[in-house]
Amino acid sequence: MDLELTFLGTAGSAPTARRGLPAFLVRRGGYRLLIDCGEGTQRQLIRSEGLVELPEVLITHLHADHVLGLPGLLKTWSLMDRQTPLVVRGPRGLRELMRAFGRVVGLTRLGYELEIEELDAPVELPRDGWRVGAFPVEHGVPALGYAIVEDDRPGRFDPERARALGVQPGPDFGRLQRGEPVCGSTGEVRPEQVMGPPRPGRKLVFSGDTRPCEFLRAAAWRCDVLVHEATFVHEDAQRAAETGHATAREAAELAAACEVRMLALTHLSPRYPPRVLEEEARALFPSTVVPRDLDRLVVPFPERGRPTLVGRREEPGSRDDETVELVQGA
Amino acid sequence: MDLELTFLGTAGSAPTARRGLPAFLVRRGGYRLLIDCGEGTQRQLIRSEGLVELPEVLITHLHADHVLGLPGLLKTWSLMDRQTPLVVRGPRGLRELMRAFGRVVGLTRLGYELEIEELDAPVELPRDGWRVGAFPVEHGVPALGYAIVEDDRPGRFDPERARALGVQPGPDFGRLQRGEPVCGSTGEVRPEQVMGPPRPGRKLVFSGDTRPCEFLRAAAWRCDVLVHEATFVHEDAQRAAETGHATAREAAELAAACEVRMLALTHLSPRYPPRVLEEEARALFPSTVVPRDLDRLVVPFPERGRPTLVGRREEPGSRDDETVELVQGA
Repeated sequence: MDLELTFLGTAGSAPTARRGLPAFLVRRGGYRLLIDCGEGTQRQLIRSEGLVELPEVLITHLHADHVLGLPGLLKTWSLMDRQTPLVVRGPRGLRELMRAFGRVVGLTRLGYELEIEELDAPVELPRDGWRVGAFPVEHGVPALGYAIVEDDRPGRFDPERARALGVQPGPDFGRLQRGEPVCGSTGEVRPEQVMGPPRPGRKLVFSGDTRPCEFLRAAAWRCDVLVHEATFVHEDAQRAAETGHATAREAAELAAACEVRMLALTHLSPRYPPRVLEEEARALFPSTVVPRDLDRLVVPFPERGRPTLVGRREEPGSRDDETVELVQGA
Repeated sequence: MDLELTFLGTAGSAPTARRGLPAFLVRRGGYRLLIDCGEGTQRQLIRSEGLVELPEVLITHLHADHVLGLPGLLKTWSLMDRQTPLVVRGPRGLRELMRAFGRVVGLTRLGYELEIEELDAPVELPRDGWRVGAFPVEHGVPALGYAIVEDDRPGRFDPERARALGVQPGPDFGRLQRGEPVCGSTGEVRPEQVMGPPRPGRKLVFSGDTRPCEFLRAAAWRCDVLVHEATFVHEDAQRAAETGHATAREAAELAAACEVRMLALTHLSPRYPPRVLEEEARALFPSTVVPRDLDRLVVPFPERGRPTLVGRREEPGSRDDETVELVQGA
């Protein structure tokens, strides 16, 4: 099952020529969901995956830079004759926000079902083989972080051990791997005799806008990718604290303490060159990347390789952009 | 006084990878104003002029694709500590729309003065040496077109005629050109004796979204540039009529009947390649252009040359864009 993350917008507060407002597209197999929807997200979607009918949008908090792309995206889906239902989830206040959007774009006449859900975090929303976790973070307003968490996978099958217990290679190997006991040469062989311990699934964690905080630390523990805001550098740590944001160094400290595999910094301010943020974080946590808009992070199972940042798949022009690089996590 | 127009967004209804939602930036000397403000306009501004503190935004109508960039732009100006006042003008219903935006982004705490004005069109708003004209158009909702109209200029001074009347070249030539009488060799010489008839100023006309209609015809008469929507081609004329839009052919017919100098088609649908719209219009009205996003139209006084479309001044990448062309009007 492939798992990847596209950075649709990596600026914070206001866009720049190169960076759009916050939005992330998570894809696991054929399922896609959007986290945050800043102004311009529909166009960034068109530039990456195309304007697919996402079933789900998760909003971290209701500040303008994270939500102003919603009414346009909902309207455009309507113009495209979308029929499939959509659920928008977010913190307390989301319903009132959507009512205000409705006054502008008539959300009752979309032509598809729109469900709004205010989450009472922390909460887990189970899916088939994975789940969405939402947890409260500290940003001065009701604000959430999100975790995309896969269920544990069965342990690794040990064919030598099975043979030693008298199980013949063939259908019985499959039964054991599916959790069924079989007959060996000396009696019943149970799966736990030939299977290693369950292996954790993958986990992507999104900080939203926040101070470093306990719920985030708990969620980020040994995750594959932590997407963390880095609105400030350490020199401006006081301002970060006052405005409910984090510095690149704070993000790196949290990533190191939580033993994450890769840290991706986002919510960038034009105050700082991305390289400065990257260097500040890498001094504490080397597996740090600062993705550009439309970059993708491919997240394999740990035994298959490291999370890898790949350049934008389609970019309508990149004359003055930096060279596309490949960056691999730990 | 230089006069130019930047096409910030040339798509209609929904954006594409290459075309943003409707917005036009008019610059006359040091004065700039924005016409319409679709989602993403703040970023298009950053990509062209920079995020200058425009004093004025004119809205053609309140459909989502023309207004959803307003709250983000207003908010970003606030984050930039804008101090100068802003006036947003548009049709009836604008105040209610802005109240709904206010529920989302807190427009009462912007830090600069925001004035909202619902225009009772047709109306002329005089400025120093020019005026904004707003006129009603037909789009099924309260909708306006706009005209940027310069005052008449003095006629051309005839130095030979002045000399023949005994006026010495020097300060008296200047007095005559400023409208003051002077003494010639055979008595008073009045300005009208040596000045040609007043010459019209330049005029830019914006159709907004509309059917071809009488107010638009009156406004567009002999204008320098008519920016006209062309949401459909002739084959889909019935649909254009039903949805309150125009075809490229209808725009060209109107441009020809009004003897405009240049027609610029906008509000493009991804249904049609721009070349198809261009060819349909040029068959009736050869001085037609179909600008791309961030293209500029430079509009000199008629005696100095033709309106000229120049390629985007700064484009963050144009790998798969068409070659930049220069196109001149009649």
